[in-house]
Amino acid sequence: MGTQRRIKWVLPLLALVTLPEARAGISDNRIDPVCDLPDTLVREIQGYQPIVNGIVSRIFEGDFAGKTWDSLSELVDTFGARLAGSEQLEKAIDYVIDGMKRDGLENVHTENASVPHWVRGFESAQLVAPFKKNLPLLGLGTTVGTPRGGIIADVIAVESFKEFEAFTPEQVKGKIVVFVPPWQGYGKTVAYRSHGASVAAKKGAAATLIRSITPFSIGSPHTGVQDYEDGVRKIPTACITVEDAEMILRKYRRGETLTIHLEMEDRNLEPFVSRNSIAELVGTTYQNNQVVVVSGHLDSWDVGVGAMDDGGGALISWKALNYLKAMGFRPRRTIRAILWTGEELGLWGGQAYREAHQANEKEEFNFFFESDIGTFEPKGLDFSGNKEAECIFREVVKLMTPLNATEFETPTDGGPDISHWTSRGFPGASLINKNEKYFWFHHSAGDSMAVEDPRNLDKCVALWAAAAYVVADLSVPMPKDVKG
Amino acid sequence: MGTQRRIKWVLPLLALVTLPEARAGISDNRIDPVCDLPDTLVREIQGYQPIVNGIVSRIFEGDFAGKTWDSLSELVDTFGARLAGSEQLEKAIDYVIDGMKRDGLENVHTENASVPHWVRGFESAQLVAPFKKNLPLLGLGTTVGTPRGGIIADVIAVESFKEFEAFTPEQVKGKIVVFVPPWQGYGKTVAYRSHGASVAAKKGAAATLIRSITPFSIGSPHTGVQDYEDGVRKIPTACITVEDAEMILRKYRRGETLTIHLEMEDRNLEPFVSRNSIAELVGTTYQNNQVVVVSGHLDSWDVGVGAMDDGGGALISWKALNYLKAMGFRPRRTIRAILWTGEELGLWGGQAYREAHQANEKEEFNFFFESDIGTFEPKGLDFSGNKEAECIFREVVKLMTPLNATEFETPTDGGPDISHWTSRGFPGASLINKNEKYFWFHHSAGDSMAVEDPRNLDKCVALWAAAAYVVADLSVPMPKDVKG
Repeated sequence: MGTQRRIKWVLPLLALVTLPEARAGISDNRIDPVCDLPDTLVREIQGYQPIVNGIVSRIFEGDFAGKTWDSLSELVDTFGARLAGSEQLEKAIDYVIDGMKRDGLENVHTENASVPHWVRGFESAQLVAPFKKNLPLLGLGTTVGTPRGGIIADVIAVESFKEFEAFTPEQVKGKIVVFVPPWQGYGKTVAYRSHGASVAAKKGAAATLIRSITPFSIGSPHTGVQDYEDGVRKIPTACITVEDAEMILRKYRRGETLTIHLEMEDRNLEPFVSRNSIAELVGTTYQNNQVVVVSGHLDSWDVGVGAMDDGGGALISWKALNYLKAMGFRPRRTIRAILWTGEELGLWGGQAYREAHQANEKEEFNFFFESDIGTFEPKGLDFSGNKEAECIFREVVKLMTPLNATEFETPTDGGPDISHWTSRGFPGASLINKNEKYFWFHHSAGDSMAVEDPRNLDKCVALWAAAAYVVADLSVPMPKDVKG
Repeated sequence: MGTQRRIKWVLPLLALVTLPEARAGISDNRIDPVCDLPDTLVREIQGYQPIVNGIVSRIFEGDFAGKTWDSLSELVDTFGARLAGSEQLEKAIDYVIDGMKRDGLENVHTENASVPHWVRGFESAQLVAPFKKNLPLLGLGTTVGTPRGGIIADVIAVESFKEFEAFTPEQVKGKIVVFVPPWQGYGKTVAYRSHGASVAAKKGAAATLIRSITPFSIGSPHTGVQDYEDGVRKIPTACITVEDAEMILRKYRRGETLTIHLEMEDRNLEPFVSRNSIAELVGTTYQNNQVVVVSGHLDSWDVGVGAMDDGGGALISWKALNYLKAMGFRPRRTIRAILWTGEELGLWGGQAYREAHQANEKEEFNFFFESDIGTFEPKGLDFSGNKEAECIFREVVKLMTPLNATEFETPTDGGPDISHWTSRGFPGASLINKNEKYFWFHHSAGDSMAVEDPRNLDKCVALWAAAAYVVADLSVPMPKDVKG
């Protein structure tokens, strides 16, 4: 997302380090050859250790233990999936706002954000030749539907855009193009979901079906947003299961003629006005400037219930404030929880918030936290920002020893909503956690409470609360070099 | 399955053993305090080591490497799921028979077996209150359907039969009972799938929905057979996903009223005449007596494609003969591959075969192999039979060192079809393999080629061929104490 790495690591020095973390290629936050923070500031940050310890132990071992999981399960069990534009999301927003008020949080309110209003309709794909087989599918966000009654077309199956280049428009015209990319990590493989429809449409395809973007499957399709390229005909596009996609590719490569009946009633309606949900723990010294944002997105896909993506991130942002306030902690700067709307369809909540707050943004915002890559067992925090802010934040992360969560990386891996700011030089951080299986469940029916663990959620909210508190309470604001 | 353990382990002796296998509770085939086989027989078995090594190396490293996976994928890609009673299964049987003939196997033929003819129809479950949510489901084998248009009923959700005991018939009447048993291993948990409908029907329930019988889920329901108890009203029964079942239980326990609209068009038709598929490598000395059977079942559930359950077991049984014959190996006794039909709906192929061969069975059969618990990386063989046969078989398993597959256990864990014989004292064996994730995919859309590995299939077929060859070629038949 355009974030640049600004510290030049002195690599020869690192090579001398024999700590296991360094050997494993993980940045070690104890070693920073280029930071030269004033000793007073380092000591000041180190002085927060007892406070961090207290926040952690009271959240992790006290009255709040297990409560974040309970709150998350009540949210997702009550409202289910929360797609942008849906009544369920708006009801969930009302519920969150009511809850924030009941928790005694401050300046609880919503701010409007226009979001796309895409609706999944009846969807069906069936292999009709050489034998009949239902192909479970999920239309991709913003896809158009088929004509009523669907389309019946022969298949072209390829495993890459490169392989597809060999096909002529004459060969592709009217066909259903099935892309079966092997998993090569999300960032690389997702290009097929994002761009498959336009790539195929340029050669006249009738529709595209794409292997779900996941490294592991038990027969579940995964959805996600896709982008129609400007000026290219919009064709229906959906993900099918790994199992079916691989079967289709094998059969196609054996020379079989495969025919699929695809019917999709998905459609794009007029944009919908949704809301970001906001609450504060107002600072003792600074109220509406130098704000520290903690955030996650409340909207989800319409399959599964969005417990992982991003109910967990939204809940720890809300509950971090709840618990800090209940424990009587109030830092110098305001901590503002924002539960974004419309993230899944393209970071719309963040964009609307940025536009509404742009005039005075350099004064208003000190730091942005976002959790949107899982709330499994936390390992630390990753960071985007300038060198001075990084040096300060490295010291803050060192305080997370009671959670065994002192890993530091930069730039951030997660943080899509806050990229509206971090991509322009505002400092921000995201949660590093043991999310190796994240994409197994991502955007599928598997995104449920079954993947959330009460103790890990306790650890995540404790980390979130402690880190936000320290950043919000420091004697100095986080340095930043803001562009644009 | 009634198999009894006949060797009394000298447990105090075992306690002195410090081998890791023994400490982990795995029977160690190097330690057998009660076997007293003649030295000549032990040496004879040990003399097969070069032959085993040759079979293994030629299958694993030679022309056959990767071929078993290719054959399995062609089978399941061509016919897909193969439910008993379906046209697809009968076409697959024809294909297997043709293939066996093309492979030059001997006495290739089918033998009829009457199987239940249960048909899955349209199935739909929707939570309609307190919010709408589609509940993916799979009706259980032999379930009846609902009346046309389905039933709309309130829910009772419990996690155990014990918890259900507290409900009165008045409370249960007309309700949909949702059983949400936590995973406690397949053998224990499957009782809810097998008996849930009858348990609920006795108190007047309208239908049952059951948490899928799996330790891990990504939103996929799992099917399986169920049994209506005699004299109890037959009610529709299906499995829903782990995620949805747990959500329903949580909501029910919070006091919410849940309503489900369940529609199922499943129905039971007249029994269907299917076929076991049979081929032989006829022995040099014994032709139609002392036969060594290698087997797996060709039928599958109608979801997924039955690559794991039990395409792999069926294919290694077929291909073991194919490869032995192609390599010029022909043992003293006949090795007979049987690809059972109708296993999933209740071991019908095995039963028909037993009945047809019962008159002369003690003479006809020497030993039964069956693989029906996965063809992941093989670890060894487990065994059922009398003490003398066990002692011989332990020596045979020791020959599998080139495959690192020398684990021995008794009695067998797998082997449902051959239990028609092993339960009465015939000796038999099943494949021990690294199947820790077997139930993740079992009876679900996840049962596909994606879980089968070419090298592991090579190892399984090599083990199968080598073990069958040695048992079929020994100077002595396997001892047995047959009852009934």
